[in-house]
Amino acid sequence: MSSTKRKFTDSNDDGQQTIHLETVRAPTNIACIKYWGKASIPLNTPINSSNSITLDSSDLCAITTASASHKFTKDRLWLNGIEVPDASQSKRFRACVDETRRLASDRKDPLTGEITVTKDEWTTLHVHVSSYNTFPTAAGLASSAAGYAALVAALAHLFCAEETFPGELSTIARQGSGSACRSMYGGFVAWRMGGERDDAKDSLAEQVADEGHWPEIRALILVVSDEKKDTSSTTGMSTSVATSDYLAHRAKVIVPERVKICEKAFLERDFEAFGKVTMRDSNQFHSTCLDTYPPIFYMNDISKSVISIVHVYNDWAGEIRAAYTFDAGPNAVLYTLEKYSVELGALMIRFYPSVVGKKYVSNDVFAAEVAKFELDAGLVKVAEKTGRIPTVNDVKYMYFTRSGPGPVKLGPEMANIDSKTGLNTYIPS
Amino acid sequence: MSSTKRKFTDSNDDGQQTIHLETVRAPTNIACIKYWGKASIPLNTPINSSNSITLDSSDLCAITTASASHKFTKDRLWLNGIEVPDASQSKRFRACVDETRRLASDRKDPLTGEITVTKDEWTTLHVHVSSYNTFPTAAGLASSAAGYAALVAALAHLFCAEETFPGELSTIARQGSGSACRSMYGGFVAWRMGGERDDAKDSLAEQVADEGHWPEIRALILVVSDEKKDTSSTTGMSTSVATSDYLAHRAKVIVPERVKICEKAFLERDFEAFGKVTMRDSNQFHSTCLDTYPPIFYMNDISKSVISIVHVYNDWAGEIRAAYTFDAGPNAVLYTLEKYSVELGALMIRFYPSVVGKKYVSNDVFAAEVAKFELDAGLVKVAEKTGRIPTVNDVKYMYFTRSGPGPVKLGPEMANIDSKTGLNTYIPS
Repeated sequence: MSSTKRKFTDSNDDGQQTIHLETVRAPTNIACIKYWGKASIPLNTPINSSNSITLDSSDLCAITTASASHKFTKDRLWLNGIEVPDASQSKRFRACVDETRRLASDRKDPLTGEITVTKDEWTTLHVHVSSYNTFPTAAGLASSAAGYAALVAALAHLFCAEETFPGELSTIARQGSGSACRSMYGGFVAWRMGGERDDAKDSLAEQVADEGHWPEIRALILVVSDEKKDTSSTTGMSTSVATSDYLAHRAKVIVPERVKICEKAFLERDFEAFGKVTMRDSNQFHSTCLDTYPPIFYMNDISKSVISIVHVYNDWAGEIRAAYTFDAGPNAVLYTLEKYSVELGALMIRFYPSVVGKKYVSNDVFAAEVAKFELDAGLVKVAEKTGRIPTVNDVKYMYFTRSGPGPVKLGPEMANIDSKTGLNTYIPS
Repeated sequence: MSSTKRKFTDSNDDGQQTIHLETVRAPTNIACIKYWGKASIPLNTPINSSNSITLDSSDLCAITTASASHKFTKDRLWLNGIEVPDASQSKRFRACVDETRRLASDRKDPLTGEITVTKDEWTTLHVHVSSYNTFPTAAGLASSAAGYAALVAALAHLFCAEETFPGELSTIARQGSGSACRSMYGGFVAWRMGGERDDAKDSLAEQVADEGHWPEIRALILVVSDEKKDTSSTTGMSTSVATSDYLAHRAKVIVPERVKICEKAFLERDFEAFGKVTMRDSNQFHSTCLDTYPPIFYMNDISKSVISIVHVYNDWAGEIRAAYTFDAGPNAVLYTLEKYSVELGALMIRFYPSVVGKKYVSNDVFAAEVAKFELDAGLVKVAEKTGRIPTVNDVKYMYFTRSGPGPVKLGPEMANIDSKTGLNTYIPS
């Protein structure tokens, strides 16, 4: 047993008070081939495989500190600075902590190499976790994907967890939030649905290609105004599975083909093929929501106007230069290539203008390029024909980003748990 | 040959100048199980059967006069008072005239019984047709269904056409506009897709039950504001057939079952079953439009708010009291039962109010009952929770109607072609 190698000083009174902590930054991901429908609710497995692009976590991310100490009396969780009551009873949080701990190994002092917590000792320590997003949680930008990926990654670093097979940590993140498994990898990712194993360990994420493979990919995210309350993804999915006559056909017949097309497009850097299958699959996902009873609407008239303008733009260009995709909300994610990103940005700002003087685009350099870009008059004319009337505040904010890596370990200076008290230090601005 | 029985005076100079005319009023119909997708474009046959309810033509109708005379030098058509240039070359108009004429028989003087036009003589006479709708053509209320049903019915009366099998005239109306075949019958109707015969004579309408079978059925039609230009049904269908991965599955697997459910509900006067399958099929039709590439949107945010309120209303009632259905546009048709119609009307007017003082509801008696109806406060509260904010002009007008008969022959005083000149007399108001 590894406990025999245990450092003596760590078990004395002082050692008992040590707070072990690790901080990570984890990315969001936006699906191109959508996940919609659970095969097993307890295992949180999907009825179809899916594909996504992991976004650059320097633009949008969850930052999570996981800590453990003998002096903690229970597991605690803070989200965006607020403690979640009874978090330790939450099934999802519980699964992430317990499953990651099952992969624990000895924790060693990085300087001396001496063991500070033995593999077997972890079960006797409670954890404190603090997590926050660098973007609005309510904005529908896959905050739970980033959040659960960050949780599992932070716990994995804390527990010095070792995967017994590639992707095992993604199977744990999956139990927090399905799409979180894809945020465990950077670049171009697949979530294999699995279904062959009773323990669902074959329902995991795989990297199709890393973020360096297709560096020209850009994403412009339009945060669309929406006063209505959304149907949660979990509720929506279960209603769709129960009532949509289309969904089973989609999962069984249509998606397997689309996953092949999407991954081939990733590997061949074929934006035309990627864009088309991405748009079609977004539409089919929302189509399935509409085929649900009662129907679920995630897109609104603003979302639909974005779709119209993107189609007009591509028709005008004679090629696919932009591809929209919408998750369970009205926000548009527009994938494009670096060479068209300024044109696309200018087109969007022309039709979805900001209140004058307001910070509107996440990236200042991009915003400046967009501001000075002269749109083709013919393009503006055909876009106007869609009936879209430029209106301020229909889009609240635009993020401009690219593909990025999976979860990244940060230094102790980025921790949002106090290493002395074990309490949250993050205060929302 | 029947010409031997010919009345002498009808072939002299005066007789040559006779204008034979017939006028009919034909109803619209609103599908419960939708038609979307053509199996054959030349034959205008569908990829699936459909069901509809024929609406009372005293509320919404097309009125068409068909006339024929030796003095007419070409076939002419007036729509809503305006002559259609080169109408005689129009494929759809041509099909209706030529196919109905093929079923012609001797025309006899109603008083004397003497033959005024022989069966074989019809091909030597040109026709003048004038047709108008009693409701806005552009409002998306199945004006073409009423229009082509009225055309074929008026021509059939004019030519004294005799069907060689039941539904033959509906096969002709089908060639004008697919859904027009269903307007050839009153009450509760099916359009059998056919597909066994090369001449498509098996793609025809059948009456499932007449309008007297379920007299409690009511329809409240909300004419919804929409600034955007629609995709025409014909274009939309062909794009859906070409690109939607869902549509073939719908036509082949889902619709046959739904037609059975719908017709059983008609026959058993089962509003719960009828309402549910009607709402689901409307949603699936619009779902299919969204699965089309590029996607087609017929409903807008106002339409969607109506859907939400109808679901809330039914949930509140603990039974289905109203069922929405939407055709290729944003207008809502709400089916209900007589006993709930005032409550439903009051609920709709509460959330889609009219400009004060404007005539807003087609039926004055109904409008008065609605105005004095006191909505349950609990119902208003749950409907408010949908997020719908009452806004004038979101709905422009409400029609209140019921199920009615098929095309009805009108007296000569209702003709909109002058019996002396053979020219249109209808002037739009």
